[in-house]
Amino acid sequence: MKWIVAENYGELSELAAEMVVGEMLTKQKRVNLAITAGTTPIGMYERLTTKVKGKNYLDHVHYYNFDEIPYKSGKQEGITLSDLRRLYFSPAAIAEEQIEILNEKNYQQHDAKIASDGGLDAIVLGIGTDGHYCGNLPGTTRFTDFTTEVPCDERLKKIIVGHFEDPAENPDSYVTLGPRSVMAAKHIILLASGVKKSEAMQRFYHGEVTEAFPASILKMHPNITVIVDKAAGKLI
Amino acid sequence: MKWIVAENYGELSELAAEMVVGEMLTKQKRVNLAITAGTTPIGMYERLTTKVKGKNYLDHVHYYNFDEIPYKSGKQEGITLSDLRRLYFSPAAIAEEQIEILNEKNYQQHDAKIASDGGLDAIVLGIGTDGHYCGNLPGTTRFTDFTTEVPCDERLKKIIVGHFEDPAENPDSYVTLGPRSVMAAKHIILLASGVKKSEAMQRFYHGEVTEAFPASILKMHPNITVIVDKAAGKLI
Amino acid sequence: MKWIVAENYGELSELAAEMVVGEMLTKQKRVNLAITAGTTPIGMYERLTTKVKGKNYLDHVHYYNFDEIPYKSGKQEGITLSDLRRLYFSPAAIAEEQIEILNEKNYQQHDAKIASDGGLDAIVLGIGTDGHYCGNLPGTTRFTDFTTEVPCDERLKKIIVGHFEDPAENPDSYVTLGPRSVMAAKHIILLASGVKKSEAMQRFYHGEVTEAFPASILKMHPNITVIVDKAAGKLI
Amino acid sequence: MKWIVAENYGELSELAAEMVVGEMLTKQKRVNLAITAGTTPIGMYERLTTKVKGKNYLDHVHYYNFDEIPYKSGKQEGITLSDLRRLYFSPAAIAEEQIEILNEKNYQQHDAKIASDGGLDAIVLGIGTDGHYCGNLPGTTRFTDFTTEVPCDERLKKIIVGHFEDPAENPDSYVTLGPRSVMAAKHIILLASGVKKSEAMQRFYHGEVTEAFPASILKMHPNITVIVDKAAGKLI
Repeated sequence: MKWIVAENYGELSELAAEMVVGEMLTKQKRVNLAITAGTTPIGMYERLTTKVKGKNYLDHVHYYNFDEIPYKSGKQEGITLSDLRRLYFSPAAIAEEQIEILNEKNYQQHDAKIASDGGLDAIVLGIGTDGHYCGNLPGTTRFTDFTTEVPCDERLKKIIVGHFEDPAENPDSYVTLGPRSVMAAKHIILLASGVKKSEAMQRFYHGEVTEAFPASILKMHPNITVIVDKAAGKLI
Repeated sequence: MKWIVAENYGELSELAAEMVVGEMLTKQKRVNLAITAGTTPIGMYERLTTKVKGKNYLDHVHYYNFDEIPYKSGKQEGITLSDLRRLYFSPAAIAEEQIEILNEKNYQQHDAKIASDGGLDAIVLGIGTDGHYCGNLPGTTRFTDFTTEVPCDERLKKIIVGHFEDPAENPDSYVTLGPRSVMAAKHIILLASGVKKSEAMQRFYHGEVTEAFPASILKMHPNITVIVDKAAGKLI
Repeated sequence: MKWIVAENYGELSELAAEMVVGEMLTKQKRVNLAITAGTTPIGMYERLTTKVKGKNYLDHVHYYNFDEIPYKSGKQEGITLSDLRRLYFSPAAIAEEQIEILNEKNYQQHDAKIASDGGLDAIVLGIGTDGHYCGNLPGTTRFTDFTTEVPCDERLKKIIVGHFEDPAENPDSYVTLGPRSVMAAKHIILLASGVKKSEAMQRFYHGEVTEAFPASILKMHPNITVIVDKAAGKLI
Repeated sequence: MKWIVAENYGELSELAAEMVVGEMLTKQKRVNLAITAGTTPIGMYERLTTKVKGKNYLDHVHYYNFDEIPYKSGKQEGITLSDLRRLYFSPAAIAEEQIEILNEKNYQQHDAKIASDGGLDAIVLGIGTDGHYCGNLPGTTRFTDFTTEVPCDERLKKIIVGHFEDPAENPDSYVTLGPRSVMAAKHIILLASGVKKSEAMQRFYHGEVTEAFPASILKMHPNITVIVDKAAGKLI
């Protein structure tokens, strides 16, 4: 595990962007990147947009969303992909052919598709205060799961509903890469910013490997880089 | 996880030998291999000896023992290294410069040494009916451990004593690569032969990830190959 | 350059087979191998057939012919592919989906296809007494060429005609991976056996890099292994 | 060959810096970089300095100079290393342990040292209008050379003398990585900026492979990235 402490959120964002661009620039083959929505990577996407937009020498990069919360009606694209479009794909003008979509219809073929595409070169993850990453919340998936559908009980529905203007769109299930799908990536890049993540990062760093804190498995990966700012890393 | 079922122990041994020789032959840089003693790999070492002995084009291969049970008196080399010499290093005439020793004196520097040597290209493991690998027996190490010293309580002393002609040599502790040291290897090769391993392999394949069955963590590795013969794989 | 001297043709064949199987066994992703027809690899294919036939854990391996001499009438598959079927694909029962065909119709898309397939993991080559490899005979291709069509003048027609029972089938051109296509492979494995190749190997090893001796470029590759038997290597 | 056209020198410098930082950030093992002095990379070093200075998470990066013009008196460090210190090592505060020196005393062990260090992960090169790179000027080295000493005849002395305040310091020879040493790197990054390089880049791109234009061999490398600005690439 490589553990990097950035001075602040701006440096964390710059460093994450450089690491992701590094994955793109140092390989001549197709590059497959799974990326995260959420608030932590906003600064990274701003910087990535500048570095990537209009650069046709980055056409060999393919992007994968790693979870999806669909609209119950199915009338529009799900929450994750919509967020990624807003944060990155649209401002960076990423071509549609470079966007590899995971959704509730194709999730059962997703691990095989990724393998056939050559595997994930890197996956960029955030972490929740409860230790979740992608859609792997405590109590939803087991370490042994590959990409899967997670049924939403009342607890999960309450967590998810905030994503929807119309609560009637709150779905009965969502899909996510499971822990084994994530561990199959060649490089895991985990980002955490802010004092509100400091206890989670303490538990990540020092705590045991347990499904009760899903991200704990990630430190077992042979090639994981963790970037925290000083606030998130203050308890280490 | 790549899961390979060999017809029988002979085919398993041949395949394991070919995989190990493959690691040696397909790289021009220094190759670092951690290898196992025990009974499962005896057939592999017989075949490896033929393929390796006297071949100076394999001088770039370095071998690492991954655990050691020392003699309490310290009068002679420990059990694991002695076994490896008898099974492989001596018959294959491996030069002393290619043997990288882990023992009770240097274990605290061992992970750093491996990293500085370029990391393990592959680690060949057996598995016990209790799910142990290297010296990671249930109740001894945590998933989060790197190379460590394991104190021997009465239970462990009973397990280990069979290795010694003179029971007074039974040591108070042994050393082993921890789960994180093993997971840091680029390729894990796990061997299991015989019907007596079939329940362990069933639990390995289908069971949860738990420290109560140490090998369960290994299936989370992005690049693990498991070779079983039909007998060991019959419950999958 | 790794230079390996085998005792004799049998050892060379075994070693080449182990190296090729090593490429297959040490990777979990799709493996792309370009292989050669001709007389040198006959022993290798005999051994490979034993190691590969009926092994479904090698389904991820794809085979590429690297040149093709078509029948002028187009009534049957070309010389190279027919030879590879006879020497290896048929006895080893390689599935048709694993055979990636280069011929006079698709050669212009071939480099792009290989790149899209993930690149060649290894290419196994023989060498002619004139320094040719694949269809890169002196005077036919430049070092800068990718996969290309070579028009057959009278000199080439005389060399090639021996492949055909019916001389009227002697074609006006053949196709071959060019030097840059070969140099793009991740690993080049060059085989040479017998005293009749000893002068060519001397020139390969000690001589200058010149299009007059096409194989001379190959020693500039960052990852080339040369396997000679004692007879072929006697002048080094 | 990946061919990237930057809008201008600033974009070229930023892109080169990102590519070099990418090599550093995407690997957890020791990273070995050979880097160039000269005028082309000045902008890259300015940006690298910002990205690298004081970042202890980049301690695993080792830097190699790839040629050296010694002072005849031997009273001070040679031209290349002095330039690299001024352009990059000093402003970026690179630790002395990370600087791996090639000079007239150790050049005969240099290829072996690099191999033992794990090989060059990347080498950053400029190109002269005469097609030279490192100290491989037309008429000095052959494609087949490894790291070597080049005796300075009158022609070379005239080219080199401009580096010295005191012409009496003009040495009788200099040392340089040879073409095979450069081709052994895992990634070649070639930079060219400005209209004065446009004819050289045209010859590089379209011309034959010939020792009369030393850089011509580099396009045979399986993993070369060329970054030109519009001015340098205008004839392609």
